[in-house]
Amino acid sequence: MRRLLLLALVPSLALAEEGMFLFNEFPSAQAKKDVGFGPDQAWLDRVRLGSMRLANGCSASLVSPDGLVMTNHHCIRGCLEDLSSPTRDLLDTGFVAPSRDKEERCPKFEGNQLISITDVTAQVTAATKDATGADYQKRLKAETSRLESECSQGDAGKRCDVVVLFHGAKFHLYQYRRYQDLRVVFAPEFQMAAFGGDPDNFNFPRYGFDAAFLRVYVDGQPAKTPEALKWAKKSAKDGDVVFVSGHPGGTERSLTVAQYEFLRDVSLPWSLLLLSELRGRMDEWSKVSPERERVVKSKLRQIENSLKALRGRRDFLVSPGFLDGKRAAEASLREKAPEHTKGAWDAIAKAIDVQRTLYVDYVMREGAQAYQSDLFNHARKLARFGVETGKPNGERLREYTDAQLPALKQGLIDAAPIPLEFEKARLTWSLKRFREVYGADDAFVKKVLAGKSPEDRAAELIDGTRVADPAFRKERLEGKPPAKETDAMIAFAQLVDGESRAVRKKWEDEVDSVVKKNGELLSEARRAVLGTTGAPDATFTLRLSYGRIKGAGTPSMTTVKGLFERATGKAPYAVTERWRAAKAKVPATTPYNVATTNDIIGGNSGSPLVDKNGDVVGLVFDGNLQSLGGNFGYEPAGNRTVAVHGDLILTALEQVYGAGHVAKELKNSTPAR
Amino acid sequence: MRRLLLLALVPSLALAEEGMFLFNEFPSAQAKKDVGFGPDQAWLDRVRLGSMRLANGCSASLVSPDGLVMTNHHCIRGCLEDLSSPTRDLLDTGFVAPSRDKEERCPKFEGNQLISITDVTAQVTAATKDATGADYQKRLKAETSRLESECSQGDAGKRCDVVVLFHGAKFHLYQYRRYQDLRVVFAPEFQMAAFGGDPDNFNFPRYGFDAAFLRVYVDGQPAKTPEALKWAKKSAKDGDVVFVSGHPGGTERSLTVAQYEFLRDVSLPWSLLLLSELRGRMDEWSKVSPERERVVKSKLRQIENSLKALRGRRDFLVSPGFLDGKRAAEASLREKAPEHTKGAWDAIAKAIDVQRTLYVDYVMREGAQAYQSDLFNHARKLARFGVETGKPNGERLREYTDAQLPALKQGLIDAAPIPLEFEKARLTWSLKRFREVYGADDAFVKKVLAGKSPEDRAAELIDGTRVADPAFRKERLEGKPPAKETDAMIAFAQLVDGESRAVRKKWEDEVDSVVKKNGELLSEARRAVLGTTGAPDATFTLRLSYGRIKGAGTPSMTTVKGLFERATGKAPYAVTERWRAAKAKVPATTPYNVATTNDIIGGNSGSPLVDKNGDVVGLVFDGNLQSLGGNFGYEPAGNRTVAVHGDLILTALEQVYGAGHVAKELKNSTPAR
Repeated sequence: MRRLLLLALVPSLALAEEGMFLFNEFPSAQAKKDVGFGPDQAWLDRVRLGSMRLANGCSASLVSPDGLVMTNHHCIRGCLEDLSSPTRDLLDTGFVAPSRDKEERCPKFEGNQLISITDVTAQVTAATKDATGADYQKRLKAETSRLESECSQGDAGKRCDVVVLFHGAKFHLYQYRRYQDLRVVFAPEFQMAAFGGDPDNFNFPRYGFDAAFLRVYVDGQPAKTPEALKWAKKSAKDGDVVFVSGHPGGTERSLTVAQYEFLRDVSLPWSLLLLSELRGRMDEWSKVSPERERVVKSKLRQIENSLKALRGRRDFLVSPGFLDGKRAAEASLREKAPEHTKGAWDAIAKAIDVQRTLYVDYVMREGAQAYQSDLFNHARKLARFGVETGKPNGERLREYTDAQLPALKQGLIDAAPIPLEFEKARLTWSLKRFREVYGADDAFVKKVLAGKSPEDRAAELIDGTRVADPAFRKERLEGKPPAKETDAMIAFAQLVDGESRAVRKKWEDEVDSVVKKNGELLSEARRAVLGTTGAPDATFTLRLSYGRIKGAGTPSMTTVKGLFERATGKAPYAVTERWRAAKAKVPATTPYNVATTNDIIGGNSGSPLVDKNGDVVGLVFDGNLQSLGGNFGYEPAGNRTVAVHGDLILTALEQVYGAGHVAKELKNSTPAR
Repeated sequence: MRRLLLLALVPSLALAEEGMFLFNEFPSAQAKKDVGFGPDQAWLDRVRLGSMRLANGCSASLVSPDGLVMTNHHCIRGCLEDLSSPTRDLLDTGFVAPSRDKEERCPKFEGNQLISITDVTAQVTAATKDATGADYQKRLKAETSRLESECSQGDAGKRCDVVVLFHGAKFHLYQYRRYQDLRVVFAPEFQMAAFGGDPDNFNFPRYGFDAAFLRVYVDGQPAKTPEALKWAKKSAKDGDVVFVSGHPGGTERSLTVAQYEFLRDVSLPWSLLLLSELRGRMDEWSKVSPERERVVKSKLRQIENSLKALRGRRDFLVSPGFLDGKRAAEASLREKAPEHTKGAWDAIAKAIDVQRTLYVDYVMREGAQAYQSDLFNHARKLARFGVETGKPNGERLREYTDAQLPALKQGLIDAAPIPLEFEKARLTWSLKRFREVYGADDAFVKKVLAGKSPEDRAAELIDGTRVADPAFRKERLEGKPPAKETDAMIAFAQLVDGESRAVRKKWEDEVDSVVKKNGELLSEARRAVLGTTGAPDATFTLRLSYGRIKGAGTPSMTTVKGLFERATGKAPYAVTERWRAAKAKVPATTPYNVATTNDIIGGNSGSPLVDKNGDVVGLVFDGNLQSLGGNFGYEPAGNRTVAVHGDLILTALEQVYGAGHVAKELKNSTPAR
């Protein structure tokens, strides 16, 4: 914990290996000093184009000129479920397409490749100058929407996002190529991908074969992707310099003390309690039948993963010294800050007070988890779609602006099955929660339940909707809404929309805009007092982190031998029949998983691990327990990234899964370096 | 929140109605000033003898000269479950004994009546003078055990406890009469007792008929209890002065900031997450069959109750201003404190640092909830019994000292059924948790699981034990342990006992003894700087609180009319057939529940609400939402006690349940005041 304290007290001192850096502001000199190698711009551009973002919150990479994409098994679990049925369980069996025509399309999947980055800070700052509160929010939204529309020009093959960096100090415009047809090529069995289950999750030593391959298609043909990364000729060894190119979802390393206290007191406890209960419910609910288990398996694992991750995050936040250190650093910074920035801390603290009072209403009404129902989430989008698209672009809710519409529509039209028994259970749980949180006498609760029990209300809404049918959703997106809404779930989404929008507006005007606006001042103060602050907090946009292959009180790699030693024959420690059968063919010394010092966070799942040449040597899939505080700070002694070793991927494809053709496609790309 | 801040900053200013006072140090003058009436010692002695404590953590009162005892339905749920079977569900049907010979004995129940209080502070202080750490703990235990044994003199009909007050500043010896044969006389249906369920829990207005009657028996005959409280002639009205005589379980109103931070950061989150998951698991587990539902119903309600209570407590603790206020008050007190006490805060903070590192091990190994299994808990007691009783009295674990042994044995011999399917589920959940918390590679986890899956290990232990059989437990208590343990669960308890005892010892020596010892110094500092501190923190011993009948932004009473208006026909808002049938006979204006300003806390459930004469006017069963912070402070504007009105009890017995004979027994005791 001493290191932690140091970090908190001396925020200007970046720790070696700390940082998820921007590709257009990469500190090559610093990397060279820390690990002995600093990439040049050509290297950076090459690795950027070989990287990919998945719309579901994961990272990936292009790994052959024919559009082959590498990511984690846990990143495509949703796809495997969608392609499964009560009689075909791809999570259980895994999937190998013997030839390209047998590759199956993943509903709901989208991949984004980052084509260019443009600094638009000047435009945004000019457009929002002197504005505050709702006015700031409005102008910011208008300018952002304008820049994004101008960039994408209505081309559904493009996606443009203005990214807010350093909490409002910089704005960069990211232009992506959108791939909307991704097909599964290879996936191992869930049991092997998630070997060790929840007990081993976030641990190292580790034995997860958490790898999968997709292929991007354009106009029904494999995409041509000459910019793909190459498979490294030499495999990774202990001590090697390695980079992770991926999309860290979010960090909170430069918040104010008031913001940290909000996380500690309000939002983290809320999420943890919700997840704990859901975890218990889903686990027990699933035990009743194999079909329930099939439907729940991957969502349950997601929930257990989040629960463990947030718990680790909370533990870090309340660990002795962390907040005291932040408090001291903040006091010192405030004292030396330029005069016109000094009010920013109090302004943010006041906004956080508002946030405390709004939080429950926000998450219960507008939050993505409020209703825990895919049908409701579709219905809300359909209900809002007509309303929002009738407004000028700059005045719409952010997800309905022209630049976002293609992705929104794609998500609505995709044909993933929605298991209705599970929908009913989840919606019932959510409706019960409304009554618990607000009490039975609350006017909004009365509206939500309409005098019925949660079970009856959930059944009524789900039995009375056609939203589960993709054709119906398409029809609604393309046609006119009916004069009187007859679909029960869409009518319900309309019924609760007023309250949802009201709290969202209050949140945006009184919290979000104040924090963004004053965030600019804080960043200015930091720059003035501390100099450059290095990497901005993560924003689910492409970043590069450097590090080395290195254990933390453990060897830096595990081997196939270790896997078989750990296997007890019982879940979550059972190896599949396929692996048992192949045991003799897989060299026991093959490296399995590998630990590195790279600084990553949730969202980096599926990132390629590349060497000094920018060639692939592994596949990132996790961090260790000490990395769970990574949201708030990087702890160099123990924080480790966990990846599947590149050798294991090739060997398993060839020796275990009869997927030598995939291995060949990877190896064919290997340059003669 | 302004009031809260005031309370925290000026701890010497007791708020009117705040305080759970000792019967031997009751501030009559202050009560007279606050509510216009201060009881004299004769009144106090009378009410004390009419009060009763139930060993399961509830309060109660004697309400007829023939040993009739009044308490809450939720306090005897365990008994009703124990007397139920798959074909007889007393929670569902309620219970009315038509005559005394039909009253049925509650297994595991024990009632304690407080006969005398003696101040033994001088003896304890002399015995522990100059001692610290393990030495202090040892001497304290030896002297306490000596005083208790001297008091009870091996008489199984007596119970003697040295009570630690003001965190170690005072020690009082409480002598109780033990009643070990309690029989159920009357209980309404669970549905009526818990009307409104979890959504209405801790709310007011409220409609809970949470009442039940037992009878204490001695030598197979109803006990003669001329000291019983009388039923009031006049029923309670808005504004009346009322007292609550009961056993508040524990408060934490004068902790140090380090201790509050420990609760906020460590112990409250831990408990809340555990309860949330268990709640989800038990609720879903129970839905599979009516028998599972029957077995789980009351435990689930208990868990939901704790969850809501602890959540409210946490919210109060993190509410803006509370800890800042405590911090300011502590700083001011430290500054003015007598020199020799000034080190106490840092000493406690250091002990709390140790507690942070020990906490998880403590709750996972020695804590009552570690294994979530009645069979394990019995087995541990059997395993320890022989070991502990072989030691001198003063050196035993506290619960095996001579004064505590009768209650321990009673609990082990009682014949309550243990539903094995539920035991297996709970033990499986607990064993899974071990692997989650420590990881699969942990040596203790390997010992606990013995290379098996949690399911298999739980099944093996439960299938291999006879501990469910009370006759086996009796045999083991009375006979010699076998040379080699063959009972799987007892052997398991022995297997994990070393680790459990080790963490308990560390906890007692390095945390508990430091906090107690320095608690004396803090109390001394408080007395020196702030004068008398009024009521000590609650300790599950008899206390008296004064107040008035008063709403908080609501009327102070609900009525039978309101009950029928609230009934939707669906759980948890359904009234039973019995009540629907009796609707015409029950006057709609009959008061139902009542709110008062008395300061109470968990443990007060079942306390009589008495008037200025000390006569019964109601039955306390809950607090409102604003009372949930009561653990840390009393908030006079909103904090309310919730009780069943006396009129409802008589009317329901007579008009709804055909239990006019019980009502008559109550009314016969009414004095001609």
